[in-house]
Amino acid sequence: MGFLKDNGVVYKPVNEIDLSPHSDEVYLYADVKAPRMAGTVARIFVWFLEMKIIGDVLLYFLKKNNRIQKLVSFAVLDESPLYVPFQPYEDVKQCEESKCLDSGLTPAEQVQQAKECLQFLDKSLDESFHRWTIMDYSRAYKSQKITPLMVAERLVSAVMQSSAPGTDMSFFINYESRDILKQATESTLRYERGEPISILDGVPIAVKDEIDCMPYPTTGGSKWLHKVRPCKEDACCVKRLRSCGAILVGKTNMHELGAGTSGINPHYGTTRNPYDPNRISGGSSSGSAAVVCAGLCPVALGVDGGGSVRMPAALCGVVGLKPSFGRIPYSGVIPWNWTVGMVGILAGTVEDSLIVYAAVSGGAEAQQPTMNQQPKLYLPMLKPSNQMSIKLAKSKEWFNDCSDDIRICCLTALDNLYKCYGWQTVEVTIPDIEAMRLAHYVTIGSECAASFAHYLEKFDKSESGSDVRVALSVYGAFSSRDYLQAQRIRNRQMKIHEKIFGMADVIVTPTVGITAYEIKDDVKKTGELDYVNGASLVRYSIAGNFLGLPAVTVPIGYDKLGLPIGIQFIGKHWSEDMLIQIAYAMEALCKAEYKKPKVYYDLLTEI
Amino acid sequence: MGFLKDNGVVYKPVNEIDLSPHSDEVYLYADVKAPRMAGTVARIFVWFLEMKIIGDVLLYFLKKNNRIQKLVSFAVLDESPLYVPFQPYEDVKQCEESKCLDSGLTPAEQVQQAKECLQFLDKSLDESFHRWTIMDYSRAYKSQKITPLMVAERLVSAVMQSSAPGTDMSFFINYESRDILKQATESTLRYERGEPISILDGVPIAVKDEIDCMPYPTTGGSKWLHKVRPCKEDACCVKRLRSCGAILVGKTNMHELGAGTSGINPHYGTTRNPYDPNRISGGSSSGSAAVVCAGLCPVALGVDGGGSVRMPAALCGVVGLKPSFGRIPYSGVIPWNWTVGMVGILAGTVEDSLIVYAAVSGGAEAQQPTMNQQPKLYLPMLKPSNQMSIKLAKSKEWFNDCSDDIRICCLTALDNLYKCYGWQTVEVTIPDIEAMRLAHYVTIGSECAASFAHYLEKFDKSESGSDVRVALSVYGAFSSRDYLQAQRIRNRQMKIHEKIFGMADVIVTPTVGITAYEIKDDVKKTGELDYVNGASLVRYSIAGNFLGLPAVTVPIGYDKLGLPIGIQFIGKHWSEDMLIQIAYAMEALCKAEYKKPKVYYDLLTEI
Repeated sequence: MGFLKDNGVVYKPVNEIDLSPHSDEVYLYADVKAPRMAGTVARIFVWFLEMKIIGDVLLYFLKKNNRIQKLVSFAVLDESPLYVPFQPYEDVKQCEESKCLDSGLTPAEQVQQAKECLQFLDKSLDESFHRWTIMDYSRAYKSQKITPLMVAERLVSAVMQSSAPGTDMSFFINYESRDILKQATESTLRYERGEPISILDGVPIAVKDEIDCMPYPTTGGSKWLHKVRPCKEDACCVKRLRSCGAILVGKTNMHELGAGTSGINPHYGTTRNPYDPNRISGGSSSGSAAVVCAGLCPVALGVDGGGSVRMPAALCGVVGLKPSFGRIPYSGVIPWNWTVGMVGILAGTVEDSLIVYAAVSGGAEAQQPTMNQQPKLYLPMLKPSNQMSIKLAKSKEWFNDCSDDIRICCLTALDNLYKCYGWQTVEVTIPDIEAMRLAHYVTIGSECAASFAHYLEKFDKSESGSDVRVALSVYGAFSSRDYLQAQRIRNRQMKIHEKIFGMADVIVTPTVGITAYEIKDDVKKTGELDYVNGASLVRYSIAGNFLGLPAVTVPIGYDKLGLPIGIQFIGKHWSEDMLIQIAYAMEALCKAEYKKPKVYYDLLTEI
Repeated sequence: MGFLKDNGVVYKPVNEIDLSPHSDEVYLYADVKAPRMAGTVARIFVWFLEMKIIGDVLLYFLKKNNRIQKLVSFAVLDESPLYVPFQPYEDVKQCEESKCLDSGLTPAEQVQQAKECLQFLDKSLDESFHRWTIMDYSRAYKSQKITPLMVAERLVSAVMQSSAPGTDMSFFINYESRDILKQATESTLRYERGEPISILDGVPIAVKDEIDCMPYPTTGGSKWLHKVRPCKEDACCVKRLRSCGAILVGKTNMHELGAGTSGINPHYGTTRNPYDPNRISGGSSSGSAAVVCAGLCPVALGVDGGGSVRMPAALCGVVGLKPSFGRIPYSGVIPWNWTVGMVGILAGTVEDSLIVYAAVSGGAEAQQPTMNQQPKLYLPMLKPSNQMSIKLAKSKEWFNDCSDDIRICCLTALDNLYKCYGWQTVEVTIPDIEAMRLAHYVTIGSECAASFAHYLEKFDKSESGSDVRVALSVYGAFSSRDYLQAQRIRNRQMKIHEKIFGMADVIVTPTVGITAYEIKDDVKKTGELDYVNGASLVRYSIAGNFLGLPAVTVPIGYDKLGLPIGIQFIGKHWSEDMLIQIAYAMEALCKAEYKKPKVYYDLLTEI
């Protein structure tokens, strides 16, 4: 870090930082003083915050007393701002066994290439619980044992069942049986003609309600946004899936405006965790994680601006893949920010995340004007006995800043990776993680305030949860200096991470610091302000967004209460092929222990 | 523009804008309501502005009542932010007759290449006034008629004469006779040995006091900055000139902290215009323009963050070249901003601007992390009879928003370009020039506040001029939303300009809206707040900085009072070769009319 001077930290030049495990860099534990608030208390706090002068004074003291000023705004550092997390590394090592796709392929052709990457997979069925894969659906449809229409009918009935009083899982914000059955009928006809478009034909896929998908409005988890921002066509990534024949089964629930990590939503109900319906599913892509967990879809799309795909994936025990910034076309996603968000994939298995990654990646306009090209798309050949030699960087204090169950589970996983594949863990120190979290917060908040100002003019406060109202008040209070200083921190962390990737292939962390926590009774109408749990959830996510690095979470076990635990691998820019390989190897070691969630629907029993 | 809605303008999508001369886009005249202030009035205003609460309230109303909110902060537009003005055009047309330099050449080798570009020049001496060129110095030294040491002695004596009471030109902030004579002695010895390093050997070059140059402190025109930011080595561009043998003759005067356009400086005196010492030389690179004008150096370096090279060049009747953003290494220049500033060249002739451009360009670290490569360097072959066919874009109302003398002079120049070379002027409409000026102001102010905060902790207000103190107060008051909205305007204007460059090769404008105005008596101690004249000066400069486009100003005549008038050509990114060609052709038509300034020193009479 450096030393504290006047009001701000003086950061050491990157070249002088000791990144070894013996470094004297201090790990800062998140210092969240705010008490949990919900119900009336939260309402009163928001009421004060939104008052004209008192609110400004309150914000002034909130800003002054937190670490943003010290670690970001008033910090002294050499770096110039890096505005877009897109700094091409010259030496991106591609996996030797990856295949490079020609540019200009259609999504269906890319899916076909992905299918060929699965040829070495171990197809022997083990006894343990496993979710149906895209290949399971494809084979079942081809064998005519079951049709897409039958699956769609079961799905519609399962969703109705899941939302019945008493169960009340709140998976979806919108779904239309008629539209689902229509798509399924068309797919069924294609199979009858022997002309499925791809292995995704007839496969149910759900989409987070932050991504445009016809014929639904895009609510962003709110009661008002779709009224001022009508959905006019499919987002680019949805278009690509539709062109592969996938059945788009509706819009999944999410944290309101993506502005939280719990998935608690006062308008559409809180998505319950299929492993324990009294607990959160995590957010903001809560519904997308839960529907995959509950067996309703092998895959769902989410959006990850600050861990929003990986956190719910970990809490729900599914795979969550956040590709490099700019890898998946972003057009048609609610433009809440310009430099941290990315479409991500939630899947029951690593192989399915690969297939959908192949379907939606590439071929799009640049996400940012300066990104005029991106590297070619590589897909990994998944193999049961992994031949790769991988070095995993682990920053001890950061890694250990989680619950005991999670820490032990993740350390065991690393042991197993070493025993089975010989993969070594390299101890390192990654400094200033907390500063990066705060700089990311300033960035996503500032960008939201600017990009959203136009819509916010029509924002009816009474229609929003307390947490969203607090967030929007804070977001609007950042100065241009706060923002620019945050971008300087971004540049510095990019350099630090580049050095870390000189010491190892990937960074390994737990995905979240805690497992799914209980949904309290007082959150129903107001939502919840819980920054302590929020900080624990988001702790390991930031590099994936602020630095644009690809990251993947894989379920590796359960805590004492039977709640899922995930491990995260963070790679260099554009190294998704290696990450997916690693995730596949990790999954192979754990899948025999996978447990069936309490709420689970089997749409494909016939096989 | 679009229509006004709620508090902000709703901008038309770029594809729907009519860029023809018949467009219904409204040209907004600068709407500056602030009265001119200096002396006691200015002091009182600053005193209020810097008070804790009253100042904030004052700033609140200043912000609310100006157009920044309407045209920038609250504006509604589709574009995402473009943070760095570095959007490679795919079709940058290089001049057919330009030569492409190999990468990896030394500065002296690049200068040698530039010399070969001059082989077709008309060397016949005409009767009219002309300043000595680099080639004049080089030939004189080689012929042993005069030595660098003799020139240096004359220069030192001329500078002393110019700063005597009564004349008081205030050209330099710092120069050391001993250091100058030492360099000159070394150069003289090289000529005696027959081993000059390049044609720049022994040529006197002055450097704006914003650029590090040993053995001088870098004051930035202030009384305090050099105390907190010591100069430890030459800036990269200075290093390059020194390696060519040039004599670095001292640090030229400038507007304090570069925060103004007049060059009025309460600490080091106001640089007087050699054409009329009662008038300003313009700023912020005032001294650099004036020393070239007065014959003390054929070339000087300046820095251009908002027209700061081109404005004084125009007011002093010399050539001013501002290359593309990122073309000249920026390290060693005071880091007042990250995305708008560029080292620029002030020269007595276009050929000399080419030679120094060749010496200082390329071979440097990227100015911004995302700029990992830049196009190769092209140098134009200068020829007396120009064979190029050029189309010049002219936006009528903008072009005409200047004094009558300037307008008539520039229109005559365009007529002559058509008559002599057949170059056509294409009438276009470039919309939202005023919005771009304000967005640039928000950008440069925000970046200054963030990059400079660390130094400002040691800033002694009592040591600064009123204009600087007002600027720093305003700069610190921008929100992150203001900044991000400004970057969206940047992206939009980049697209608009790309379309304009589809219709013509370059954009032509007057360089400034007024000629040099008088230095009033009351500015001596406080500096001056004169936003009306400031807006007139800066009117045509912004695209060169905010969009990073290269631009050049050439002297083309004089107003009724005998004060110089310049014309400006703005090109696509990386089209400096074409711009220099055009400037050379323009100069050739005007140079017979060039007049000698009232204050002029001839260092090379012997020839």
